[in-house]
Amino acid sequence: MILAIDVGGTKMAAGLVARDGTVVEARRTATPQHADAATLWETLTELIEPLARRAEGVGVGCGGPMRWPQGEVSPLNIPAWRGFPLRARLAARFPDLPVRLHNDAICLAVAEHWKGAGRGVADMLGMVVSTGVGGGLILNGRLVNGRTGNAGHIGHVVVEPVGGPRCGCGGHGCLEAVARGPALTDWALSQGWAPGSATTPGPPRRAGGQVPESGEGVVARDVQAAYREDRTVTGKALAADALAGDPVALRAMSRAGRAIGIAIASATHLCDLDLVTIGGGLSQAGELLFGPLEEALREHARVEFARRVKVVPAALGQEAGLVGAAALILATDSYWST
Amino acid sequence: MILAIDVGGTKMAAGLVARDGTVVEARRTATPQHADAATLWETLTELIEPLARRAEGVGVGCGGPMRWPQGEVSPLNIPAWRGFPLRARLAARFPDLPVRLHNDAICLAVAEHWKGAGRGVADMLGMVVSTGVGGGLILNGRLVNGRTGNAGHIGHVVVEPVGGPRCGCGGHGCLEAVARGPALTDWALSQGWAPGSATTPGPPRRAGGQVPESGEGVVARDVQAAYREDRTVTGKALAADALAGDPVALRAMSRAGRAIGIAIASATHLCDLDLVTIGGGLSQAGELLFGPLEEALREHARVEFARRVKVVPAALGQEAGLVGAAALILATDSYWST
Repeated sequence: MILAIDVGGTKMAAGLVARDGTVVEARRTATPQHADAATLWETLTELIEPLARRAEGVGVGCGGPMRWPQGEVSPLNIPAWRGFPLRARLAARFPDLPVRLHNDAICLAVAEHWKGAGRGVADMLGMVVSTGVGGGLILNGRLVNGRTGNAGHIGHVVVEPVGGPRCGCGGHGCLEAVARGPALTDWALSQGWAPGSATTPGPPRRAGGQVPESGEGVVARDVQAAYREDRTVTGKALAADALAGDPVALRAMSRAGRAIGIAIASATHLCDLDLVTIGGGLSQAGELLFGPLEEALREHARVEFARRVKVVPAALGQEAGLVGAAALILATDSYWST
Repeated sequence: MILAIDVGGTKMAAGLVARDGTVVEARRTATPQHADAATLWETLTELIEPLARRAEGVGVGCGGPMRWPQGEVSPLNIPAWRGFPLRARLAARFPDLPVRLHNDAICLAVAEHWKGAGRGVADMLGMVVSTGVGGGLILNGRLVNGRTGNAGHIGHVVVEPVGGPRCGCGGHGCLEAVARGPALTDWALSQGWAPGSATTPGPPRRAGGQVPESGEGVVARDVQAAYREDRTVTGKALAADALAGDPVALRAMSRAGRAIGIAIASATHLCDLDLVTIGGGLSQAGELLFGPLEEALREHARVEFARRVKVVPAALGQEAGLVGAAALILATDSYWST
């Protein structure tokens, strides 16, 4: 059994994964917010201890950035871990076992290639569209790491070079800056979206979700401020409202879909891809996201070799991160090289 | 000795390349224009026959698209060859020798990695900016083919998704549609550029290369039509005028440079690149191209791993195509897998 670990800003998961990729046991806990580095480590060790006895290897997916393959992690969403030697700590706990760590988005891509929608495909990009936009690149059947372990960063492919939104990376016009959940909900709020309004009575809003031509910024910012701390303001809520026909939510999905389609066209031309899989919360919007995505992709991917690329939803559910982490140990030939 | 062949729309070249990559003999001829498939093949055989006796292997670079690795070529700029079985013809002529064929842009990238500016680099993109914009991708020290041999097509990374020019591929806003030589000269003509005006007396033109605010399209199209068949309207002439200070030519170089910089930022994020080499006629504009390129690249490549990417001019001259073609035979481990 492989002890698989998936560390994110919201939750930590650990599981035992069999040689065939089946998750035979899994445990989850909330990632402590505002905790110090030691508390985070304690939380993780408590999570994994009940599984430790049966482990024959340890595979870990963790939010980036990180020093790779050393496994010193500085997850954007876990501020207390800056250069935290996660791999070394685990190696000290499991001195007789291989311990391998990679970016969580990479693990999701690996999982889809190993046991999900990308099985048997030579050249694919596995994407996740959620709080961030990430990915992993598999070419000629093998994971591409890049020298620093950062290959696959589709989230920072430029899709709006002129006037595009600022990105957390310091650049602007990146796919992530346009299509990550919080960017989309912010955009929708600025356009007059009121979460849940399409399905349930909400605060007063303008007909059709349109904002007036003038004074738009002020009105929108008020709404935005009111909702920002509200837990109903999520990509999932936006997707639900889009499904219920809210016009602003629909435009937000279209905006994200088109941006993703453009980035996929660029990646396809550069890497001669067969397949792109898309997971993460936003992908649950289904056709409302995939429709505009396909439209933009087919506008831009016209040359024969690029037309063959297929875009499909990720096939694995919430255990994908554990499956991919385990694959770093169980399918070394394809997914581990340093 | 390897018989290396480089087939393009303007010229055909053949040479003998030693094991160390030295071109010991080279011959060139103009590609017959408006010729049929058989005449083209005859021209090529006449070019290579004097070198044939000493050949121990045959490596070929040819304009794309092509069926790869079969080597059935349909070069955009050689209309009479559509699905022409170039590799099979050469294999019939050299039945006892290995014959390998790849995209000409791939061969240039391979040459730079093997013997040029990319020696010893793990992850690089070799670009050529000329009549077209092409490239080849080397990751983890090996050429990435993609399943159809089309990886490296940086020319069709999207850099102007909104309002960008139509591309020969059928899409719009591709890097090639913005930065290829003819697109740039067309753009410069539309903005009032008169070739050679910065250095020699030319036809009457407006001061400062500016066109009037109104009626611009009509005036520009007249100028464009007048120059289009003129052999002075080349990317090289544009670069020369930019060097001499022509303001429109300068803006054209800046336009190309920024577009290239944006595409490189996207490729760097996706492939975790160390290095990009740029060859082709336009790269001779030097700082006028590389300055705006660097500016745009550094605006967009902000995250730590991406900041390390370096962009340098290609180091090999006009024999790069032959060197890269020979490498398909001489450095199989790095550059040939099917």
